[in-house]
Amino acid sequence: MNILDIIAKKRDNQKLNKQEIEYFIKEYTLGNITDYQAAALVMAIYINGMDFEEITHLTIAMAESGDKVDLSSIGKCVVDKHSTGGVGDKITIILSPIIAAIGIPVAKMSGRGLGYTGGTADKLESIPGYKVEIDEKEFINNVKEIGISLITQTKSIAPADKKIYALRDSINCVDSMPLIASSIMSKKIASGADKIVLDVTVGNGAFMKNKEDATELSKIMIEIGKRSSKETICILTNMDEPLGNTVGNTLEVIEAIQFLKGEMSDDIKDIILEIGSYMLKLSGKYEDLEEGKKIILETLNNGKAFEKFVELVKKQGGDITNIYNTEKFKKAKYILPVFAQANGYISKIPAEEIGKISCFLGAGRMKKDDTIDYSVGITLNEKVGNLVQKGDVIGYIHSNDREKGIKAVEKMSKIIEISKDKIEKNNTIISVLL
Amino acid sequence: MNILDIIAKKRDNQKLNKQEIEYFIKEYTLGNITDYQAAALVMAIYINGMDFEEITHLTIAMAESGDKVDLSSIGKCVVDKHSTGGVGDKITIILSPIIAAIGIPVAKMSGRGLGYTGGTADKLESIPGYKVEIDEKEFINNVKEIGISLITQTKSIAPADKKIYALRDSINCVDSMPLIASSIMSKKIASGADKIVLDVTVGNGAFMKNKEDATELSKIMIEIGKRSSKETICILTNMDEPLGNTVGNTLEVIEAIQFLKGEMSDDIKDIILEIGSYMLKLSGKYEDLEEGKKIILETLNNGKAFEKFVELVKKQGGDITNIYNTEKFKKAKYILPVFAQANGYISKIPAEEIGKISCFLGAGRMKKDDTIDYSVGITLNEKVGNLVQKGDVIGYIHSNDREKGIKAVEKMSKIIEISKDKIEKNNTIISVLL
Repeated sequence: MNILDIIAKKRDNQKLNKQEIEYFIKEYTLGNITDYQAAALVMAIYINGMDFEEITHLTIAMAESGDKVDLSSIGKCVVDKHSTGGVGDKITIILSPIIAAIGIPVAKMSGRGLGYTGGTADKLESIPGYKVEIDEKEFINNVKEIGISLITQTKSIAPADKKIYALRDSINCVDSMPLIASSIMSKKIASGADKIVLDVTVGNGAFMKNKEDATELSKIMIEIGKRSSKETICILTNMDEPLGNTVGNTLEVIEAIQFLKGEMSDDIKDIILEIGSYMLKLSGKYEDLEEGKKIILETLNNGKAFEKFVELVKKQGGDITNIYNTEKFKKAKYILPVFAQANGYISKIPAEEIGKISCFLGAGRMKKDDTIDYSVGITLNEKVGNLVQKGDVIGYIHSNDREKGIKAVEKMSKIIEISKDKIEKNNTIISVLL
Repeated sequence: MNILDIIAKKRDNQKLNKQEIEYFIKEYTLGNITDYQAAALVMAIYINGMDFEEITHLTIAMAESGDKVDLSSIGKCVVDKHSTGGVGDKITIILSPIIAAIGIPVAKMSGRGLGYTGGTADKLESIPGYKVEIDEKEFINNVKEIGISLITQTKSIAPADKKIYALRDSINCVDSMPLIASSIMSKKIASGADKIVLDVTVGNGAFMKNKEDATELSKIMIEIGKRSSKETICILTNMDEPLGNTVGNTLEVIEAIQFLKGEMSDDIKDIILEIGSYMLKLSGKYEDLEEGKKIILETLNNGKAFEKFVELVKKQGGDITNIYNTEKFKKAKYILPVFAQANGYISKIPAEEIGKISCFLGAGRMKKDDTIDYSVGITLNEKVGNLVQKGDVIGYIHSNDREKGIKAVEKMSKIIEISKDKIEKNNTIISVLL
């Protein structure tokens, strides 16, 4: 077998077999296939596509390219939850302690942020002392002891995916369904979960800009899950506006803590109940979705979810006094109001632009090695559909640089649109595919 | 402008404009675009194609990527001749002195061989002392003084083509019409000729395996020629069997010398008359093709073509005693006969296989830096269609290694096919496109 024949096959729109895909992934990971040969093959895959069988082989080969986490010693069915990326997405931080408090083990590895979408690992690190980089043994041990551990993905998970993702980025081949689907699913499979609930975000601030594309991607991932014996459910959620009321690491952690204490925004609550109830269903513990939702609300209201979060933070080395009293978190130097520019209904809070402003303030990374300023970000007082008066404070910019803060306020004022006509609120849950 | 947008356009089957193509060629030549980005673009071009306008822009940009030879000081219309590659192809060595003897200047740069097809520059170097690497000044000076110079292509001619060709080879994107056409034509344009006759070989030993592909390639090259004001004519010739009776550097030079002395094989004669008469027509000197052919035969028969060849060899530093007495050329150590395996008509002397055997004996390069053994190769006593008896000597293997020689004889015996039924001779000239 050689790479030239494999390239020629996909170039000529033929189907690659398991051996060919495994050969490519193995040899490319080892450095025996050059970047330009991989680039040619990736472009051919982008243009000519792959069928379910090929995508499944690709996913499994990437999952097998590095270490695989073995969660079997936990002794229970582990259900993973993953989002395809969004702005203001703090669902994992809220939902994980809820699920763990109900008695379903949570052993979750989350990514760091890149570009305008934040990463759960970065958000957790904004809690002083919280260690997201612990070894696999400690990770599994924590799950065994307290039923939960949230850490960052280790470097040895799916190294082939990391190489191919970086390559796709540099040859403009990112938005290819087979490549996106295999990238997400390979990491999930290597991370050891038995079943997976995917939050597939749709809209302005998401990778998938419309429902059709998100549905196609979901179907591919569900099929990969089926073929690799990891039952997968996809929940399409709205990402036209940011989730909840905050964007930025510390700000989002505080919002998550407040949610766990009972201060729940509608959109986050919708997603927590939807994804949560499907996780409970997949775990086998609560077949009935409505019963699951009731249990989730109960676990929030009786404080058990919050307690589990405190336990998690403590176990991971974090300072729990911050969790009890969020005023202790380090604040940004400048907190500048953003005013409504007209009377009317808020018609647009574009998630991508908001994410970019947050990034510009220092909350995200433009390059892999950028450092993050945890305290900066954006607070939104309003959601799409709300009625405002000109001059109302519709949000705040949190900045450690005055000039940047002022610029961010200007940008915010421009991108938030207000309409004379009544505007419907966004529907948070778009559809469920299983 | 940036390479990612250019890649995305061709990826999505859109047309690239002049500026985008120029940007790619310039920045890739300078090393500012990586090989993997170029590989992705080349694959997208391979799959999605290019229209005439794009191919012309690509060709001209590649021609402009390095030095361009200025032949204007010669003061006459220079007609170049180029072959798309074959086995046993010594046409340039024979035809150039004929054309020069008729009074049309010949300023020709030829390539070196790679793979199983030989290169004219290598063949000329088998003449002791002949220098194919002289500078441009001396090259033009020779043409001015004696009307002819045959050298190798200088390194500074179309460097973008060299880079892209090497890349295509390593990502299996060689056989793409737009890329083949622009590669050939960019070198011809940069080499300074005013008009071009292309010998487009067709068949087993050629790049184009059938008439349809060869016709398509020809049409593209003719159109590029038109759009860059270099009138181009394509002559499709048969390459199912090797040209003439020899394959290998010294052996082919000797056959060329014998031809110039009047010992003409039919297939070479057909091509010399056809291509030659079109070169004379393009030069403006002999509009009538039949008159041109008559002049060519006259120039051969009266010895003037041979004399011009001697003059050329002398001017380039070669030892002309070899030309007068070809027995002086260094011979291979072992000259082993190949016998007919049956009674009947020769039905196949597969050019590609013959080329590979010659290469195996040391006559060609498998890698760019391989050294060539000038004396080795193959002599063929018979052509397709000839009637032979079992045991007849149908050819000889010339080898400097006994083991290799014996292996080559075995291979030859296997690949030359003999049929009970009468077999028609190959038609040398397939068609002319202008």
